[in-house]
Formats: sequence, structure tokens, C-alpha cells
Amino acid sequence: VSDSDLLIDHHREARTGVPELVYGASKTAAQVVAALRDLAADGRGAIATRVDAAKAAEVCAALPAAHYHEVARVIELAAAAGAAVRPACAPIAIVCAGTSDVPVAEETAVVAGFLGAPVVRITDVGVAGIHRLLARVDDIRACGVVIAIAGMEAALPPVLAGLVDLPLIGVPTSVGYGVSVDGLVALGALLASCAPGITVVNIDNGVGAAVAAVRIGRLAALAAAGMKAAR
Amino acid sequence: VSDSDLLIDHHREARTGVPELVYGASKTAAQVVAALRDLAADGRGAIATRVDAAKAAEVCAALPAAHYHEVARVIELAAAAGAAVRPACAPIAIVCAGTSDVPVAEETAVVAGFLGAPVVRITDVGVAGIHRLLARVDDIRACGVVIAIAGMEAALPPVLAGLVDLPLIGVPTSVGYGVSVDGLVALGALLASCAPGITVVNIDNGVGAAVAAVRIGRLAALAAAGMKAAR
Amino acid sequence: VSDSDLLIDHHREARTGVPELVYGASKTAAQVVAALRDLAADGRGAIATRVDAAKAAEVCAALPAAHYHEVARVIELAAAAGAAVRPACAPIAIVCAGTSDVPVAEETAVVAGFLGAPVVRITDVGVAGIHRLLARVDDIRACGVVIAIAGMEAALPPVLAGLVDLPLIGVPTSVGYGVSVDGLVALGALLASCAPGITVVNIDNGVGAAVAAVRIGRLAALAAAGMKAAR
Amino acid sequence: VSDSDLLIDHHREARTGVPELVYGASKTAAQVVAALRDLAADGRGAIATRVDAAKAAEVCAALPAAHYHEVARVIELAAAAGAAVRPACAPIAIVCAGTSDVPVAEETAVVAGFLGAPVVRITDVGVAGIHRLLARVDDIRACGVVIAIAGMEAALPPVLAGLVDLPLIGVPTSVGYGVSVDGLVALGALLASCAPGITVVNIDNGVGAAVAAVRIGRLAALAAAGMKAAR
Amino acid sequence: VSDSDLLIDHHREARTGVPELVYGASKTAAQVVAALRDLAADGRGAIATRVDAAKAAEVCAALPAAHYHEVARVIELAAAAGAAVRPACAPIAIVCAGTSDVPVAEETAVVAGFLGAPVVRITDVGVAGIHRLLARVDDIRACGVVIAIAGMEAALPPVLAGLVDLPLIGVPTSVGYGVSVDGLVALGALLASCAPGITVVNIDNGVGAAVAAVRIGRLAALAAAGMKAAR
Amino acid sequence: VSDSDLLIDHHREARTGVPELVYGASKTAAQVVAALRDLAADGRGAIATRVDAAKAAEVCAALPAAHYHEVARVIELAAAAGAAVRPACAPIAIVCAGTSDVPVAEETAVVAGFLGAPVVRITDVGVAGIHRLLARVDDIRACGVVIAIAGMEAALPPVLAGLVDLPLIGVPTSVGYGVSVDGLVALGALLASCAPGITVVNIDNGVGAAVAAVRIGRLAALAAAGMKAAR
Amino acid sequence: VSDSDLLIDHHREARTGVPELVYGASKTAAQVVAALRDLAADGRGAIATRVDAAKAAEVCAALPAAHYHEVARVIELAAAAGAAVRPACAPIAIVCAGTSDVPVAEETAVVAGFLGAPVVRITDVGVAGIHRLLARVDDIRACGVVIAIAGMEAALPPVLAGLVDLPLIGVPTSVGYGVSVDGLVALGALLASCAPGITVVNIDNGVGAAVAAVRIGRLAALAAAGMKAAR
Amino acid sequence: VSDSDLLIDHHREARTGVPELVYGASKTAAQVVAALRDLAADGRGAIATRVDAAKAAEVCAALPAAHYHEVARVIELAAAAGAAVRPACAPIAIVCAGTSDVPVAEETAVVAGFLGAPVVRITDVGVAGIHRLLARVDDIRACGVVIAIAGMEAALPPVLAGLVDLPLIGVPTSVGYGVSVDGLVALGALLASCAPGITVVNIDNGVGAAVAAVRIGRLAALAAAGMKAAR
Repeated sequence: VSDSDLLIDHHREARTGVPELVYGASKTAAQVVAALRDLAADGRGAIATRVDAAKAAEVCAALPAAHYHEVARVIELAAAAGAAVRPACAPIAIVCAGTSDVPVAEETAVVAGFLGAPVVRITDVGVAGIHRLLARVDDIRACGVVIAIAGMEAALPPVLAGLVDLPLIGVPTSVGYGVSVDGLVALGALLASCAPGITVVNIDNGVGAAVAAVRIGRLAALAAAGMKAAR
Repeated sequence: VSDSDLLIDHHREARTGVPELVYGASKTAAQVVAALRDLAADGRGAIATRVDAAKAAEVCAALPAAHYHEVARVIELAAAAGAAVRPACAPIAIVCAGTSDVPVAEETAVVAGFLGAPVVRITDVGVAGIHRLLARVDDIRACGVVIAIAGMEAALPPVLAGLVDLPLIGVPTSVGYGVSVDGLVALGALLASCAPGITVVNIDNGVGAAVAAVRIGRLAALAAAGMKAAR
Repeated sequence: VSDSDLLIDHHREARTGVPELVYGASKTAAQVVAALRDLAADGRGAIATRVDAAKAAEVCAALPAAHYHEVARVIELAAAAGAAVRPACAPIAIVCAGTSDVPVAEETAVVAGFLGAPVVRITDVGVAGIHRLLARVDDIRACGVVIAIAGMEAALPPVLAGLVDLPLIGVPTSVGYGVSVDGLVALGALLASCAPGITVVNIDNGVGAAVAAVRIGRLAALAAAGMKAAR
Repeated sequence: VSDSDLLIDHHREARTGVPELVYGASKTAAQVVAALRDLAADGRGAIATRVDAAKAAEVCAALPAAHYHEVARVIELAAAAGAAVRPACAPIAIVCAGTSDVPVAEETAVVAGFLGAPVVRITDVGVAGIHRLLARVDDIRACGVVIAIAGMEAALPPVLAGLVDLPLIGVPTSVGYGVSVDGLVALGALLASCAPGITVVNIDNGVGAAVAAVRIGRLAALAAAGMKAAR
Repeated sequence: VSDSDLLIDHHREARTGVPELVYGASKTAAQVVAALRDLAADGRGAIATRVDAAKAAEVCAALPAAHYHEVARVIELAAAAGAAVRPACAPIAIVCAGTSDVPVAEETAVVAGFLGAPVVRITDVGVAGIHRLLARVDDIRACGVVIAIAGMEAALPPVLAGLVDLPLIGVPTSVGYGVSVDGLVALGALLASCAPGITVVNIDNGVGAAVAAVRIGRLAALAAAGMKAAR
Repeated sequence: VSDSDLLIDHHREARTGVPELVYGASKTAAQVVAALRDLAADGRGAIATRVDAAKAAEVCAALPAAHYHEVARVIELAAAAGAAVRPACAPIAIVCAGTSDVPVAEETAVVAGFLGAPVVRITDVGVAGIHRLLARVDDIRACGVVIAIAGMEAALPPVLAGLVDLPLIGVPTSVGYGVSVDGLVALGALLASCAPGITVVNIDNGVGAAVAAVRIGRLAALAAAGMKAAR
Repeated sequence: VSDSDLLIDHHREARTGVPELVYGASKTAAQVVAALRDLAADGRGAIATRVDAAKAAEVCAALPAAHYHEVARVIELAAAAGAAVRPACAPIAIVCAGTSDVPVAEETAVVAGFLGAPVVRITDVGVAGIHRLLARVDDIRACGVVIAIAGMEAALPPVLAGLVDLPLIGVPTSVGYGVSVDGLVALGALLASCAPGITVVNIDNGVGAAVAAVRIGRLAALAAAGMKAAR
Repeated sequence: VSDSDLLIDHHREARTGVPELVYGASKTAAQVVAALRDLAADGRGAIATRVDAAKAAEVCAALPAAHYHEVARVIELAAAAGAAVRPACAPIAIVCAGTSDVPVAEETAVVAGFLGAPVVRITDVGVAGIHRLLARVDDIRACGVVIAIAGMEAALPPVLAGLVDLPLIGVPTSVGYGVSVDGLVALGALLASCAPGITVVNIDNGVGAAVAAVRIGRLAALAAAGMKAAR
């Protein structure tokens, strides 16, 4: 199993609009380096997620152009100047309830940014003080799509879904102890929500939320451009 | 196992402030009749819960003084005139999100009423339309204790816990389908809530919530009387 | 708890773009009739889901204008002539693997249609004969958003997510026996998918998928109109 | 995500009677310091829970006035002399079965004490030697509210609930091995208890129990004062 | 699959001290009849468990000597006069908390009786009124082995295990609703008990408890005879 | 919480025949030392279980008379010469399938030995080579009670239960990976066994099995003595 | 969704060696009839599984050539005289522990027979009487592949796997009550087995076991023919 | 428990065609050495699995002829020159979706190779890029049996099962996070697959898959030889 055994799917961006993203948790540093190099060969950069600090140090030593987002645990090779630009994307609101959810929010933000999306971060608006969320509803409505990140009882996304008409993606997080330790309660709460229209991704899955939001955000950007042109 | 084998705990009200309540689901109609008669012998009435309509008809035929609360599935033998009165209890707010939760809310209300508590019902204030809840906060604050009943993602009690300073008991319900069919998600969400101070009872357990609320509501009634006297 | 106790959220469509939809499973026929009448008062019609055949007969007897979609278990009151039209929506592809998934697919289709979305149904394209799916990829790409419905091991949505660049919503179904009887395996498989960009709703939740897809499909319709205008 | 991003909910005590309490497990030492400083600015002190010894050392180095309760894993900044005093609270009995439950009991006691409650600790009264519990019933009855803490099969709280008429909050703990390793059996046993009137909080959740008990204990203190005045 | 296909294990009593007992739930009436006839051919009778009333009527019509224990759901063919007598067995105390557990207690009692054990039934001694149990401890100590049957939180067996020195077998029952509906909480509580020495059988498994108790009770009978002889 | 807070239940052996045994996992070394000293004050020795090597070294340094059984993870203070002798106990067969189960078997053996039981160890007789078990059946029949210890699919105890007429206690172990990692499959298999008469203790619970077996083994010793006297 | 919407995969037998088999549980009688007719058009017959008696009566009324296997719940349209014959298959031993497993064994046998496999049924050889299994080992060894069907603790397949060198497929069944009610314990036990070489299918999945066994049995038939030719 | 206590089952290969394989995870280095030496005494070599790097270093120091397969975590003692050769086996295709599954694939490959099977490795053919799998179908068809290894949603084996007519064994792996962290979703997906004929082993159980595949592959080799001879 040498590093050169990797069979990168180079046509994925052509088929699906989004390139292959390297899942770093189960790869060695050498495998991450090889995969990033291979993916970035077209000049549009590359991303590896779930990379802890020690592995990141090894990778960045081998790839001086790489940047490590510490809170997000993401390594990013930026696109080269002059590379093909990705399609325009409407702003994505990334809303979360407290500091515990910030690592997942940052993973989401970095991946979305790499894929060309402007990001609006809204933090510390948990439902235990509902006025904080109500104060930010207009900021959220100004975006094209919303990602709501929540652990424990995950009550924030259902409340938010009743306040806006945007596509809304919920990300449950594995925060807390007792019944909430592994995020299954938050996941269940988002799936069971009585506010129709919420869709959900795996626990702590910032990458999946970002990719789904970008697919939608690109439509929203086109829609906004069309409405502007129509005026 | 004849009906006379029942070993009623007649001193329970003296020890715990609340008499034995008959759990009707696993008893025959004859056993329910025998238990209600035995318990009501002191003139203070008796209650049997989880009695379906067919069994209730049999019981009420044998006990003409009994009243069947159909939605609540509770049979009540009212206290006799002149019987010892139970202690005063502050009003209990029984708050629920939608019509699906009404049977549990009614079980709660009937039991609480039997134990001497005034009840304030507040229905259809789910978080998908948060303004409906905000409009009723003052009505809730006027009570001595709150019971919040919620199924699916159970987001109502955490939001409410951040708005009032009363003791708040959450009752998860087994409403819905898919992940919410048995109420475990609602139970988990209430236990995991980031709003400290919520306590929880078993799924669909209106009886337990009513008893716990009455224990607190009696303190609240004494407190209110004390404060009034102090003015 | 009289039927008039319902507290319909009449401003929900203004806030979220989608009106309240009646969840029929835990309501009596009389409550369903009252809710449909109340919601349809603005002339734009109304929908009740999870209504079995017996309850539907009662409702339709009281509401002669209502139509019962038997496979979908949905009652629909169509919009009145001249009522305000809902926003344009791009076509939604509703893809499913076999006849077992058809009831959920129909619920999805009826709700999406009521909300103004054209629907393209693609059935019997399970992965045990992958050529059947490959033959329909172009039909799917011609839509604005995809809903993929799958029970058992739910392998269809991940395969599809690697073939198209559209927003893709997965709906797990409770089909089969043994480990798949309640749909939890299908739900887990969709959440765990290695194909990023899939988002998921509750098991058998055709309503939630339809609402989420319509929020996206309206953006796609605007985008398509904009692109057309730009030519 | 700088430390200054924290959005402390300063009005929570005014709304709910209890200030925001810092959940230390998912915060850095710097974030804990910032949150404690911000919360304590009104002179009434602050609390951070779930702080391990290493993080506590960092926090206490930055905040010399802070005290670390080692068994409880809580950092406390005491109220300043002359600060507004919290409402009177009746004594809270904190009852537990064995030494394994002591860390949760201590977390409960420290938080309750910070909120102004006198605490009566009763330890090593497990049901395997029921006489030990019976010997302490009068001490428990002299309090205003009871918190019963129990792991494994959690038989102590149901026995106790049949002996007293006080509000009783059960806290399941994650003690033991095999089926009891994560506390789910203890949680289930408390929820399933046939002794009505027990309410429950999350596994190991001393904070939640303390806050709920204080909300009740303040009513009990008013009640006791009223009864005294009435004599 | 004709009825004659049954391959009865006629040497089981010689090897294990207890004959094969017919599990009636998954057999047709004809299969139950055939199995009972075959087993009873040695004159020592036979037992079929988990037989509902309708199937029992069919079986008893074919086997006039059979007796149906309705509450226990057991069909018994008594031993013929003059058949080989089973070994002496010490009395077995069958203790349960409430009327809900009586069907399992009766299954246990009938099977134990068939195997030659005297049975002492002690019912309605749940821990919510602990004095009822304490009043019966001497009756229990007079037996040779104890079977404690309990649903919900199953607190009775651990309390009892701390009061007697007899072998004690716990039987969890599937009584109640919410978290206790399937008996898993009661099972977990018995296994997690901090009172060492309790052993446990499957949920509602009166047969297994009876067989295990008889194996022990026969030793206890020999022990008692030996002690008597030694005096 | 000083070490002197321990409330040892000194009358437990008088009530239940077995002294309190110290559960070492959740105690500090100082607490273990204090508990062992207190319990051993009557000269009959004491036991602490679940003590890892590091904690054991601390304890043995403070209690030079203590012996650490490394594989069993048990610390034993032997009874003093001349102390009251425990009742005679028949030999206990401790049967296990493979080397993975040996630590639990050793915990069982050490505790049983401390309580006065002779122990016969039979190892490596897993069902994948059934002849190994058949070769040892006579050795097992010569004992008074059997403890069968098994992880993974736990097929050994059911096979054994069909071969002997002794009381048989099954101990599931947490051996293996995948579905067997936490012992729940082994536990379930023992509870579900079609061989009636097996009783079960918690996963890895050698202590509970030893105590239960000793309660039975003492009866068996009396029975054997009686039978001998009768000859 | 008319009956003609079925998209039968007619090339499946060419690709995989086994034709599409109709899963009858989620189809109407009309859909089953249409699917069977379509599949049988090539003269090689067709099978529908999981068909209850009422639906079977409807199907057989429409398809007089169809035969309903009642215990197996399978409808079979036999191959026409002169149709292409399926490849030779070695005998398949179908071994099960008791009468409870017979319906799954029959489903397995009927499907295997339809696909051209001779079947050897061996029933009532549960491990509670191990001699019954040992007596049949030679009969099993004479087959080409073994399917072992077992519910409850599923100890039979691991014992058997240690006695023969044939490919062995385990089928867990949903037999019993308490922990074994849904077959998950039996499934877990088969997966956890310490006897390597067992492979497993879904609970009650006789169809899957038959198809897998036939794929292997055809190789075994060729092997046997080759060995015979070589002599 | 000395090392010499091991009771190796030397006749297992004669009975089952495959020798005992040492499960290294729960053995000390000394026990692994003793077991390997004992098993290899017949000259045919031996295997120990689940050996981490540190333990492997100890074992290899004591057994210089041993080779440690690092990725597979397997220690192999090769057969001696001139030892009895194992039966011929057809090539086994080991197919996996990504680099995360490689450790399990390597364990499978090393064990299969030791048992005499040629192995064809096919990696990085996940369904997110289905063309990669389609390109390799002919290579797979050229083998005698297929092992498909997959984590997360495990969609690869069902797709593959619809493309080939070979016996196919699925191995779920514990790859990923959130719902897929322990491999239960992958296991469930393989068991629930709508593509009949897949059989499954425990999560990460490369050994079990290899043994089952070799049992089949030996039949396939005989079949191929027979077909060749027949030409």
C-alpha cells in the first residue's frame, strides 16, 4: 500500500460541481500530502479535513504553501493565481448556539470559503436567551442559505426554521455529557423537528453541510443576479 | 389472585402528601373497581389512570359515582362532601405545543385537579411560531409551577425555561413517526437541554408530572400566602 | 378541547414561504376538517397528511371539495380559482428504488405539487441493477433539485450524489424486516454517506423533503429565469 | 474566534432567577477566565463547572480570587462583600448511596451553595443496608427539597420518595461497569420509578439538579417564613 | 413438517434433573398436543407455557386431563398416580411488587409446583411503601430460595438482597410505558444492582427462574434434612 | 469528604452471609486502605476488587499484610489465625472458553476462595472444539455449583446447561471487537438461552457470580454432609 | 402507479446467476400477479416471498398454475416443461434447532429448491441436547454447503462450524420474548462467534441465505463432478 | 495461569480445513509466542492477528522466523519447506472503497494468503465515482469468490452483488465519525441489502471473511480444475 496507490477521482468536480475533499483522519501524513498534491495539480487548490495538530505539522512541513486552520482542523492549499474560478455563491449564514459548537462551525466555514462561498458567522444565540436570536434574524435573512449548528437538545434550528424562508441545513454536534455525549440526541431532535423544511447531515459533519449549502448557494447567486438584471 | 388480594398502601398520603393512584393499564375492570372503592373509603375520592374506553364502561357501571375523563383516559371518584380537604396549591401552568400532546396534558390536568391544584391550560404554542409562546409568557409567570409537555424535538421547554423563573417540569410525549415514534428523542432532548433547571419525568407520564408539581405548588401556595400576609 | 381550540399559525407562509400543513395522524376527523377549513379560508387551499382511508372518508364527506390521494394518504383542498399563485419552482426529480418506497414518494409528490412544484417521478432504479439508474441520469440532471427515496441499505442516494451536481435530499423509508424494519439502517446509511452534499430528513418524511425541496426549487426557478434572460 | 467573542447573557438572572453558569469542559482556560470575569463584573461572583485540574490551575493563576473545588471540579469566584444578596433558600438535602457518587454530589452542593442554598449532605445510605437510610429520614424531612444521587440500579430515590413528602429530584450517575457504565440504566430506573413525584435530570448533571432545587427551595423558604409569621 | 416431526429430548430429565418443557408460543395447538402427549408418556406429566386462551381451549379439548392455568397461561398435565416422584424441594418464596407482575409470578409458581416445589407467594410489597416488605422478611427467610419479580425500576430485589442470606433470582417484567415498556430498564437495574448475589433471567421468564430455583431448592431440601438428622 | 466518612455496613455478613466487599474502581488508594482496615477489624479479612496495578502498589505499601492478585485485580487481606471460620461450601466449578476470559475467571476464583469455597478451574473448553468440553463433564458434575464465563457469542453455558443438573450461573465478558466489544451480545445470548435454568450476572461481574455461587454452595455442602451422614 | 409501472430487471439472472425474486410484503396482490407473470414469461418460473394467506389466495385465484407454500409463505410458479434448466447444485443442508425456526427454514428450502438445489432438512438438533446434533454430523458433511438457522442465543451454528469444513451460512431468527424478541441477540451471537468461517444474513432472511448457498452449491457441484471425473 | 495452560485445538484443521488462528488482542506477548510455537510444531506455520506494534516487537524478538505485517497487524510464521501443502484455492478478489478500509483489507489478504489463497486487491472504487468500479468488474469476475470491504454507508457491496455471479462476502468497517464511528451502520446496511446473496461477517473481521472465502475458494478451485479437465 504505497502512497501512490491513491486513485483520485479527478472528474468529480466536473460531474458534481465540487472536487474530492481529503478525509484526513484515517490517512498518514504522507498520504495526505500525496492526495493534496495530486488534487491541487490543476491549480484550484485542495482541502484536507479532520487533521490533528501533530499530523498537520508534518503535512505543512512537506507542503510550505499549505495553511492549517487550527480550530477547524483543516489544511488548505489555496488556489493558484490565475486558476479557473469556481461559480459565484450567495452568502451562507453559519449560526451556532455556543462556544462548544465553534469547531464544527469553523470546519464548515473554511470548506465553504474554499468552494467560493462568502460566510456570515453568527454565534452565541442559543434558545436559553431567545432575544439574542431574534436580534439577528434580519442578518440571517440577508443570506442565501442557512447552516444551523447545535448540540445538546438542538432547539435552535427548529426555532430558526419558523422565522425565515431560506433553505436550512442542521448540523448536530457531539457536545456535552450524559445523554448528549455522542450527538445522537441532537441528531434525533433535528430529524424529529416539527418545523418542516429542515434537512440534516451527520453529527459534526461540517464538510457535508458546506458542500450541500454551496450547491444551493450557487443557485441563489444566479437567482439574485437574475432578479437584479430583471429590474 | 382474587380481587381482595390487593394490598392498598393507606398511609401513603400521610407519609408523602399524595394518596396511592391506581395504574389501570395492567388491571382488570374488577381490580380497578376494588382498588378505587378501597382507596375512596376515607371519603377523599380516588383516581385510576390509563383506562381505555371499554374498561372504563365496565368500571363506571359498577361505580355509578365515577366519572370517566375520555381524552385523559382517567376515571375519577370525586371526594365526598365534608371530606378532609387537601392542602392549598398554587396554579399550575400546563403548556403544550400542539393537539398531539393534548391527551397527556389532560391526564396531567385531571390528576393535578384531583390533588387540589388549579390548572391553567396553554396549548398550540409550538416553537415553529415562537410569537405564540412569547404572547403567553405573562400568563405562565402568574402561576406557581410550570409543566411543559412536548413531543418530537421538544424544543418548547428549553425556550420556556429561559423566559421564566418558576420550577419547570418537562414531559416528553410519544408523538410522531420515524425517530420520534416512541418519545425517546423528546426525552433525550429534555434531559440534554442547555437551559439548566428543567427536570423531567418518563415519556407520557402525566401522573408523575402532576404529583411532582403539586408537591411544589403547595410550597408556592404557602409562599404566596406568606408574602400576602407580610404586606 | 373543542375543535375550535386550534390555534392556526396564519402568518407562517408570509414568514417561511410555506403554509402550515396539517399532520392528520393524531387528530380526529373533526379536527382535520376544522383545520383544513381554517387554513383554506384565504383561497389558496390546504393539505392534511397521514390520513388513513377511514378518517379520509369522514373528512371528504364533510368537505366535498377535498380530494383524497390514496397511496399518498394525503387530503388536498385545491386552491380556489383566482387565488394568489405561489412562486414558480423548478422541476423536482423524485427518484426511488422500488415499489416499496412508492407511498412515501407519492406523499412527497402531492405535497410538492400543492406547493407549486412540477414533479418528475423516476421509480424502480435500485442499485441491484445499476444500469437502470445510469439510463435516467440525464432526466434527473434536467431538474432543479433531487429527492432520492430509499429503504433497506439506501445505496441509491450515495450513487446518485456522485453523478449529478444538483442539491440532493435523501428520504429513508421503513421498508423490510429484521435490521431494516424501522428505517434506522437506511437513515444511518444516508447520514454516513461518503458522498458529501446529501442532506437527510426523518424516516418516511415525504412532507419535510417536499418543503425543503420547494425552498430550493424556487431559487432554481429564479436562477433559470435569470440565465434565460441573460442569453 | 477570539475570547472576546463570548456573548454573555447578562439578563438571565433577572429573567430566570439564576445567572449563566460557565460550562468549562469545551472551553479553553482563556475562555473560562474571560467568561468568569465578565459574569462576576456585577459583584455577585461566578461559577465554572467541569474544569479538570490542569485547566483549573491555569484559570486560578489568572484569577487569584478564584477557588477550585477539586472533588466537584468547579471553580468559584465568590461574591464581593456588599454585593446584592440572592433570595433566601430552604436547606437542600443531598443524599447519595456511596463514595462513587460523591463527585456529582459535590458539584451539586457547590453550585447550590453559590446560589444561596444551605446544604445537608447524607452519604453511604445505599439500599443494600436499608437501615442506614431509615435512620436518616428525619434529617431529610427537615429540609425543603431533596436531591437523591444514585448510580447502578438507582434504587435509593424510589425508596426515599415513598418516605417523604418533599419535592425530590433524582440524579443518575455514570458509576460502575457492564450495563451500568454510562449511567443509562440508572437514568432509566429513575424515569421508570413506580413512586410518583420523582423528577430527573441528565446523567451526572449536578448543576441542573442544583438550579432546579434552588428554584423550589426559594419557594420553600418563603413558605417557611410565612408559616412562622402566621404562628 | 408434520406433528410427528417433533424430536423430544426424553433423556433431558436424567441429565439435567428437569424434563423438557414445551414452549407453546410458536407451536400450533396440534403440535402442543403431540408434544405434551409424548412427554407425559412416562407418567410424570408435562407442561406447556405461553399458551393463549384460544389455543388452550383447542389443546384441552384434545387432552381432557389437561388443566389450563389462565393467569399463568400454562397448560399442565398432572403426573399419573404411582408415577416416579421428583426429588424433594425446599419452599420457594415468590415475591412481587404489584398486581402488574402477577402473570409472571403465576407462570413461575405453576412451573415450580409441577417440578415438585412448595411455593410461598408474597405480593404487593413494592418499595414505595417499604414497611410492607419489612413486615414479610421473616416469612421469606423461612424459605430455601427466593424469586423476586419486578418491573419498572425493579428496586425490590436489591433491597431484599440486603435483608436475607438466601440465593435470590431476579425476574424483570415488561410492565409500564415509556422507558419501561419492554422491560429493558428493569433488566438493566437487576444486573447493575449494587447488592451482590442477585442473579437474573430473561424478561418475563418465569420458566427459567422456576427451573433455576428448583435446582437450588433441591439442594436446600437435602441440606435441611441433613441438619435435622444431625440434631 | 475525608476518608473517615466511609459508613461501612458491619452487620451485612450477619444479615446476608457475606461481608461488604470493597469496590475499588471509584475509590482513592487512601479510601481503599481505610475501608479494608475497617472491614478486617473483626479478624476475618477483607477484599477490594477492580484495583489496577498502580493503586494496588499504594494500598499494599500501606497494608503490608495485603496480597495483590494481579490477573484478578483483587487485593486480599487474609483472615487472621483463630478468626471465626466461614461456613463450609461445596466446590465451585469455574469454566471458561479461552484465555480472554481468564481475568474475570480469576476475580471470581479469588472472591469465592476468600468466602470459603474450594474452586475447580476449567479453561479453554470453547464450543469451537466441543470434544474439549465433553471430556471435562465428569469433573464439573463433581462440584456443587457451576460458574460458566463466556464472551463473544457465549455458546458454552447453554451447551453446558444441557449436560449437568447443577445450578449454573453465566458471566458474560466484554471480549472481542465489533458487535462483541462491550459484552452486550454475550449478555443477551445468556439471557436468551433456550436451556432453562441458567441465571446471569452483569458483564464481567465475577464478584456477583462468586457471591451467588457461595450462597448456593453452602447449601450444597450441607446437603452433601447430610447425604453422607444418611449412608 | 399502475401495475404496469413495474420495471423488472430481466437480465439479472444472466449477470448474477439468479433471477429477480418478488418481495411480496409491500406489494398488492395485483402487483404480485403482474410481477410473477412478467418474470415467468421466459418459461423458467418465478417466486414471490413474504405473502400472507389472504394475499396468496388472491394471487392463486389469478394464477391457477401457482402453488402456495403455506408454512414458508412463498408462492411458486414452477418452470415450464422444456424451459432452460438451471445449473446443477450440490445438496444444501438446512439445519435448525427447533420448531420455532421452521417457517424460516421452509422459506429457505423452497427458494433453494426453485433455484435447482437439492435440500436436506435437519430439525430439532438444539444444543440443549448436544447428542442430537452429533448424531447428524455425517449427514451434514455429505452436503456441499450448510445453512444453520437459529433464534434465541443461536448457539447451534458456532458448535456446528467447529465440526465440519463446509461453507456455513447462519440465519438468525426472531423467535422468543424479552431480549430475543426481534432476533437482534441471535444476529449478534452469530456475528460475534469465535468459530471463524461463519457468514451471516439478515434476521429471518431465508431468501438471502438460499441465494448465497446456491451460488456456492453450484461451485460444489462442479467440484464434485470434477473429482468424480478425475477418479 | 502459566503460558503452558493453553489448550491448543490441534485437530481443528483436520475437522474444519482451517487451523486455529491466534487472536492476539487479549493475550500477552509470552502467550502469543507460546501459542504460535505450539501451532507451528507441525511445520505448516501459524498466524496471530490483532497484534499491535509494541507486542509484535516482543514476539518477533522471541521468534526470529516470524514476520510482522504492520498495516494488517498480523504476525506470520511461514510454513517450513517440505511441510504438507494446503489445498488449492481459487483467487479471492478483495475489493474496498477507500484508504480507510485498507487495514482490514490487509488483515484479510494476509490470512487468506497464509491459508493458500491467491489474492487480487482492488482499492479506491467507492460508489461516489461509480465508473471506477465498473472499470474493474471483469477483473473481479475472473476470481472465484469476492470479499467486499466497506465502511460508512457500505454501498459498494450491494452494487457489486448486482454485477457478478460469484459468492460475495461483505465486511463492514468501523470508519468515520458520528453515526458511522463504530461500524454499526455499515453492518446494518450490508445485512439489509436488497441485493440477495451477500453474506456478512462481524465489523472489521478480516479473519472471518478470509476463512469463509477460503472454504468456498477451495470448491471453486476444484470446480475450475474439473471444468478444465472436462474440455
